Amino acid sequence: MASPRPVSADEIEALAAGAWILGTGGGGSPYCGLLNMRRLYREGTVVSLLDPDDLADDDAVAVVSTMGAPLVGQERLADPAPLEHAVRMMETYVGRRFVAVMSVEIGGGNGLAPFLAASRLGLPVVDADAMGRAFPEAQMTSFAIHDLTMYPLTLADVRDNAVIVARAASWKWMERLSRKACVEVGSVAATCKAPRTGREVKECAILRTVTKAIRLGQTVERARRAHDDPVRAVVDAERGRLLFRGKVQDVERRTTEGFLRGRATLEGLDEDRGRSFALAFQNEFAVGWLDGEPRVMTPDLICVMDTLSGEAIGTETLRYGQRVSVVALPAPPVLLTPKGLEHVGPRAFGYDLEFTSVFA
Amino acid sequence: MASPRPVSADEIEALAAGAWILGTGGGGSPYCGLLNMRRLYREGTVVSLLDPDDLADDDAVAVVSTMGAPLVGQERLADPAPLEHAVRMMETYVGRRFVAVMSVEIGGGNGLAPFLAASRLGLPVVDADAMGRAFPEAQMTSFAIHDLTMYPLTLADVRDNAVIVARAASWKWMERLSRKACVEVGSVAATCKAPRTGREVKECAILRTVTKAIRLGQTVERARRAHDDPVRAVVDAERGRLLFRGKVQDVERRTTEGFLRGRATLEGLDEDRGRSFALAFQNEFAVGWLDGEPRVMTPDLICVMDTLSGEAIGTETLRYGQRVSVVALPAPPVLLTPKGLEHVGPRAFGYDLEFTSVFA
Repeated sequence: MASPRPVSADEIEALAAGAWILGTGGGGSPYCGLLNMRRLYREGTVVSLLDPDDLADDDAVAVVSTMGAPLVGQERLADPAPLEHAVRMMETYVGRRFVAVMSVEIGGGNGLAPFLAASRLGLPVVDADAMGRAFPEAQMTSFAIHDLTMYPLTLADVRDNAVIVARAASWKWMERLSRKACVEVGSVAATCKAPRTGREVKECAILRTVTKAIRLGQTVERARRAHDDPVRAVVDAERGRLLFRGKVQDVERRTTEGFLRGRATLEGLDEDRGRSFALAFQNEFAVGWLDGEPRVMTPDLICVMDTLSGEAIGTETLRYGQRVSVVALPAPPVLLTPKGLEHVGPRAFGYDLEFTSVFA
Repeated sequence: MASPRPVSADEIEALAAGAWILGTGGGGSPYCGLLNMRRLYREGTVVSLLDPDDLADDDAVAVVSTMGAPLVGQERLADPAPLEHAVRMMETYVGRRFVAVMSVEIGGGNGLAPFLAASRLGLPVVDADAMGRAFPEAQMTSFAIHDLTMYPLTLADVRDNAVIVARAASWKWMERLSRKACVEVGSVAATCKAPRTGREVKECAILRTVTKAIRLGQTVERARRAHDDPVRAVVDAERGRLLFRGKVQDVERRTTEGFLRGRATLEGLDEDRGRSFALAFQNEFAVGWLDGEPRVMTPDLICVMDTLSGEAIGTETLRYGQRVSVVALPAPPVLLTPKGLEHVGPRAFGYDLEFTSVFA
């Protein structure tokens, strides 16, 4: 397929649905971003998708995301302007023009963030991200796992506040400094992360994840139209594993330190009747326990989907009584390396568990 | 006197003592800064003092301070390198070279901060500041009272962390954003505030406060050598008011949100026997009560001095049993205007008191 290629309005719909599944509960609901994109497309915008192989080695790529606690995104609506502001501020700061935009995380609303930015900037979106899913913290990226430079970062809010983290002593310091600024402006902010060269994207990003998210969304949509089981369709198409079917019995949730943290308990239905499944989350689902035993853990993708519609359910929208299916999808290989697991394995989230993949 | 004029090593000693009195309990102990300056002077450094009238209207002036909670400054020693780093970062960010350095607050260790920076930058220090004393927050300056622009601000720590607050929606937002970054790096950081033009300094700064601090220190030193009462000497020379003599009976202190907050109670001695004096502080002394009645309040300068030596006592060094004198010194006129009182009057510190000056 020629690159850059235009992304259709239908593909934007599929991207939103697929990114929400890849969000593993986080990355923020794509709903507001989707409404923005629908309007922009109605007004004539068409965003192009650029294959990473078509980047020149020294091209400059903007890496964007909306940072914060998913629950806040339910109350403060997404708007492309702060994302554009963060990117423009970065261009001024580093004294270079970007040739394309990409997402730091394909999961959730952040899968649409580069499209929102690209609409205003007139740039294509690179078919890649740095997580292959969503994760809550700055050091949880393939760029960090590859030890790329973590600064500068620009951050803009909906008022007239803008912060540049000019230098950070480590990826964890970048996370701490940017998180505090984000919390202070209301636990949601548009960010432009450290600029990447075309070569860094090709060598250190997780490639073609926009295409993957669109494909996932199309799988769900096709199954729905055919009155097939969309959860089963996703599991089959993506070589996933259905782990549990049940009903949400309890959700504990708190917005703290710029994150949405909590725990949910599911009561088994159908073939899982009599069993229970517990999920712990920090923005994204981190660990799942079946009858008290660890069953699935990060970086394997833990996706909670509506059993009937196949729609993903975020950690902020999970609620009592929902009929849900817990599905595991395979993680990008870079996350499964020893270095990758240091950044995104269960211990990185405070769980004293040796990583065991559902797919091992 | 010709300007710029060299500041002697003896004047540096007097400046440290005088700035500590003007610190009204805060601004950080000047002790570490003084040790640094003594070494720099032994190595041949001589810093020059520039009268504000000798600034050209479009000269660029760096406004520096060490920001944070005074108690932390007792544990993490002052070093001129982060101040230099913050100033250099600002020069790069705004694309201009500074011709001079000044302090945002003459009080406490921050009275020496521009001298530390100037030693490494080879620049003169402007004989002015923006408080005429010390205050805890960013919006408590004559620059803020004059509605000058509050951004950009650069902040550097002793590791390799550096943050630029590129824009702020208001002075309070600048305070919030820079404070959170400061707290995150350990509640102490070197900052370079929004650059000022020579004209802004001449029109909106509080002028010749370095000279005033040196004079104050010399007054104390002269009285000590003559075996006179140094507290009385300061009160006479600066048209101050002795409010209370007593002994420290109790101190409550907590380092919170990047500030040192607390309360101290003094038990009267000599002519104040049988009376008590209470002091509330947020880095600096904010309000004093004599036998439960408000007796003195910000922006009047509330200075607590060792009764025998005349040395100032900081909110972080106040301790049980000290014999102290509470002295009020007049505030710079700009702080006493209605706009000034909005920024630095008792209500700005959360006390529901109408400002009444000791000197009214």
